[in-house]
Amino acid sequence: MPYIEASFFEERFSETKFSGEMVAALTEAVSSILGEEIGSETTVVLHGVPRERWGHGGRTMEKSS
Amino acid sequence: MPYIEASFFEERFSETKFSGEMVAALTEAVSSILGEEIGSETTVVLHGVPRERWGHGGRTMEKSS
Amino acid sequence: MPYIEASFFEERFSETKFSGEMVAALTEAVSSILGEEIGSETTVVLHGVPRERWGHGGRTMEKSS
Amino acid sequence: MPYIEASFFEERFSETKFSGEMVAALTEAVSSILGEEIGSETTVVLHGVPRERWGHGGRTMEKSS
Amino acid sequence: MPYIEASFFEERFSETKFSGEMVAALTEAVSSILGEEIGSETTVVLHGVPRERWGHGGRTMEKSS
Amino acid sequence: MPYIEASFFEERFSETKFSGEMVAALTEAVSSILGEEIGSETTVVLHGVPRERWGHGGRTMEKSS
Repeated sequence: MPYIEASFFEERFSETKFSGEMVAALTEAVSSILGEEIGSETTVVLHGVPRERWGHGGRTMEKSS
Repeated sequence: MPYIEASFFEERFSETKFSGEMVAALTEAVSSILGEEIGSETTVVLHGVPRERWGHGGRTMEKSS
Repeated sequence: MPYIEASFFEERFSETKFSGEMVAALTEAVSSILGEEIGSETTVVLHGVPRERWGHGGRTMEKSS
Repeated sequence: MPYIEASFFEERFSETKFSGEMVAALTEAVSSILGEEIGSETTVVLHGVPRERWGHGGRTMEKSS
Repeated sequence: MPYIEASFFEERFSETKFSGEMVAALTEAVSSILGEEIGSETTVVLHGVPRERWGHGGRTMEKSS
Repeated sequence: MPYIEASFFEERFSETKFSGEMVAALTEAVSSILGEEIGSETTVVLHGVPRERWGHGGRTMEKSS
């Protein structure tokens, strides 16, 4: 029953394959450690966060490269 | 002070009554166990997740029925 | 596939029936709105937070009644 | 490495300075307690929630003042 | 109604004043931007994560200094 | 800057290698899609949830096999 939430910059999702590829890769990571059966029960939810709502060290990320 | 976060497929929210009904139902669930006073202090936040960002068993949900 | 996370004061869990009753009540709330089939696919995760790690209005809750 | 997630009504973000100011203020709060070095490693993610998806005491917030 | 969740290494909480000070500082940060009234309605929940369950760049943090 | 939170049954963590292996595998999954540099900036936080606080279909998981 593992549950995974993964947050990325919203812009990542402009690449249409991104969601499917990331869901598969994160699920495969769980399977590689806990086995295929647990992988088949794994939920992955992806979140997109606009750069201006993601801060690090006190500054929002749209100002960084 | 209970805090509840509930995630659903984004499409659920196209039904305008959905949010109000789900907030009321989840709050009533808390009240039924902890009493009306605690229910009145309960916060419920609803999240909508597009099917293509919700994966189960390695596949995103827009491919499933 | 609804996913619900519900946070309560850790002390609630000293009542052994609490988890089972709250999982059932929150799931029933989903079923009442979205139907039994969706209820049967609903995940509920309960979190216990010590009062001293839960703040409201700038004060931690162990100081309030 | 502190990680902070802060949820506000979505309407707050219509004020363009809001994100930058809130990221800076929350990071400064961490620095004031744990020091500048930890502050510089602090991640802050801001979430906007529409009032109609935010409930308190069983009612969604767009009905309250 | 702002809601803030802040995660730190579990060891921070061995300092008994930490929770109260961090709740006050994070709430004051909200007040400084949105005013005292909103600050008074702000919820802050603090989470402690053991270093060995916190990873960065592929390694768990108890191996780093 | 990806941020991943992964929840598992608490019992998984009784296996001491579990945290390190899962952090590495989930980070490698991100690197495989977004490249090593983004992988090196990825944060993974693992959560352990006791079976009796994890419900599916209205029942807590300690009753299931």
